Amino acid sequence: MSRLEDCAINYKGETPVVMLDVDRVEANYHSMKRGMPTANIHYAVKSNPNTHILGRLHDIGCKFDAASVGEINLLFDTGVKPDDISFGNTIKKTKDIKYAYDRGITLFAVDSEEEIEKVASAAPGSSVYVRILIATTEAEWPLSKKFGCVPDHAIGILNYAKECGLNAIGISFHIGSQTRHPSMWKDTLDGISRIWSEAKALDHDLYLLNIGGGFPSYYGTAITELETYCSELESMIYDRFEGVEYLMSEPGRGLVGDAGIIVSEVVLVAKKHPSDEVRWVYLDIGKFSGLSETMEEAIKYQFIIPDRENSSTSKCILAGPTCDSADVMYEINKVDLPIDLKSGDRFIIKNTGAYTTTYSTVWFNGFEPLKELIV
Amino acid sequence: MSRLEDCAINYKGETPVVMLDVDRVEANYHSMKRGMPTANIHYAVKSNPNTHILGRLHDIGCKFDAASVGEINLLFDTGVKPDDISFGNTIKKTKDIKYAYDRGITLFAVDSEEEIEKVASAAPGSSVYVRILIATTEAEWPLSKKFGCVPDHAIGILNYAKECGLNAIGISFHIGSQTRHPSMWKDTLDGISRIWSEAKALDHDLYLLNIGGGFPSYYGTAITELETYCSELESMIYDRFEGVEYLMSEPGRGLVGDAGIIVSEVVLVAKKHPSDEVRWVYLDIGKFSGLSETMEEAIKYQFIIPDRENSSTSKCILAGPTCDSADVMYEINKVDLPIDLKSGDRFIIKNTGAYTTTYSTVWFNGFEPLKELIV
Repeated sequence: MSRLEDCAINYKGETPVVMLDVDRVEANYHSMKRGMPTANIHYAVKSNPNTHILGRLHDIGCKFDAASVGEINLLFDTGVKPDDISFGNTIKKTKDIKYAYDRGITLFAVDSEEEIEKVASAAPGSSVYVRILIATTEAEWPLSKKFGCVPDHAIGILNYAKECGLNAIGISFHIGSQTRHPSMWKDTLDGISRIWSEAKALDHDLYLLNIGGGFPSYYGTAITELETYCSELESMIYDRFEGVEYLMSEPGRGLVGDAGIIVSEVVLVAKKHPSDEVRWVYLDIGKFSGLSETMEEAIKYQFIIPDRENSSTSKCILAGPTCDSADVMYEINKVDLPIDLKSGDRFIIKNTGAYTTTYSTVWFNGFEPLKELIV
Repeated sequence: MSRLEDCAINYKGETPVVMLDVDRVEANYHSMKRGMPTANIHYAVKSNPNTHILGRLHDIGCKFDAASVGEINLLFDTGVKPDDISFGNTIKKTKDIKYAYDRGITLFAVDSEEEIEKVASAAPGSSVYVRILIATTEAEWPLSKKFGCVPDHAIGILNYAKECGLNAIGISFHIGSQTRHPSMWKDTLDGISRIWSEAKALDHDLYLLNIGGGFPSYYGTAITELETYCSELESMIYDRFEGVEYLMSEPGRGLVGDAGIIVSEVVLVAKKHPSDEVRWVYLDIGKFSGLSETMEEAIKYQFIIPDRENSSTSKCILAGPTCDSADVMYEINKVDLPIDLKSGDRFIIKNTGAYTTTYSTVWFNGFEPLKELIV
């Protein structure tokens, strides 16, 4: 049993709460670095901006990727230097670009003509990398088409950035959340490396390759161990890309996913009719108070019910405590839960360090945002 | 043009912001009361717990439905008496039931055996109404099966509540969000009234009928005007139900939907490739900062682009500002937007008074929760 599971099982306080283990984050960082020693790890602040996590990562040499001015200011408060921050959101207000630039940040993501014009006007002469849209991957949760230009247009965007006086130094992509094995990167790396080579042949001086995130956490389906994962991935990259001087990665979940655990409580166990086989189990945490990643049942969390370890189980639908009918976590993928489960039972949700705290709503249905506890 | 639209168009401050018109809420309350004079209106606090709205509704005699202890405390702070509060969530912690009961609240919703046992132990002798699950309705956004027992089991639940020493005084149901015309209530009222009659024939002393919410706001498809809507609905109810002494409704959207307007800003307009017909338009507000009801593109908001009123339009995908790929509001239902739309343009989102403010996340991607402005 991990230290975090032990803490969660022995926790006696109010629920729901997420317990965070900063040592685990540090250990993950070192595993990643051992596997991929040449990588510049820019932690994706959005996955968990807890100040203890940011502080520790800063102390051990990690860099950061920010999605907004809010995150940039938090990083400055943590003591991070502007050179160690990339502004990786492809959707930025002009005034926010200027704010970042005035404070020394000079590395931005772009994926469109208008964004290039904004960066060129508000942060003249800065460095940019062009985000490329990945159509299909083997990620458990592939991304939408929201970010990136299509591969066909990548050279056009690089050309335009150069025309506008920016340093077009690199390419980025995101393979999608939860890419469980390094072998699943192959086709994407093949495709991106063709664009990389083509751009270099056209005299673009590319040296930054940003491979984004996608590093997995364990949610019930096997994943490759982190150091091995990174080591294989690094080899695959250098086999395909020439002239990469700044290999950049943006892990979020891969660093903090297994560094958090949620302790919640069963509020109600009910059947719609006594003859139903399926029970409805309602927790004191739901889709609007931390478990947003259960949208479309994408992330399938694992559970511990400490007081019912030896009970037999049956299929349940799992839902949250609000009066919102959409606040249902798992209905298609029913969850096996103890047949004697009842109101008041502790219910532990594993590997919930990423995309939980800041995703919770401010006060929906009068419920407070998810509380954090460093252990 | 409404006063709220006028305010939004002339607003020069920071975005995003939701502007709230408390007079509009009051006017809606009076329309509802004129149409349905016998109804006890319990405002669904969760739809918008702004203290100015709560205060005004309290001043003009409205009652309230609370989903949690958080909402109950806010109502007490507003000066609402416990007799005017129902605790309508069917999923309540025992300690929260006790907290409410100790402070004088004696009306609770139940839909299952375990919930009855909790109410009976923590709030002995209280009054309960039994929520019944409505399978199919003509609502624009039908509810899931999260709440209510199936109709077949309603008598069983009423019996069990009585056995446990509770006053089983009524029945409740929810027809689903955005039921646009009163005629759409017919089949549901027919079904519920059969249960009502059956229960009365079995000596259940029912006198409370809680018709829930479902009162619509205008989102581009015709709706019946509020007073007429309520008047027709009230007739339909008394035609079907005998012995209703406490007709109860729980409007949220129907009272506050058109009392709010969001002013946002276009952050980026982009094409994935120059030859694409469809543009991507990114706003400074999205699914995680107030527009949660665009989940599954359920609620289709209407827009005003004040500076581009006369421009021709083309189809766009509308998305939010975060690095989350799920933060896309309308992709299947594309939105016609001005062809000269660009970064920095004001973008007004109408009828956003309900389910916006408290749905916004605490700090996802470093973006602040939606700000409110009373006008």
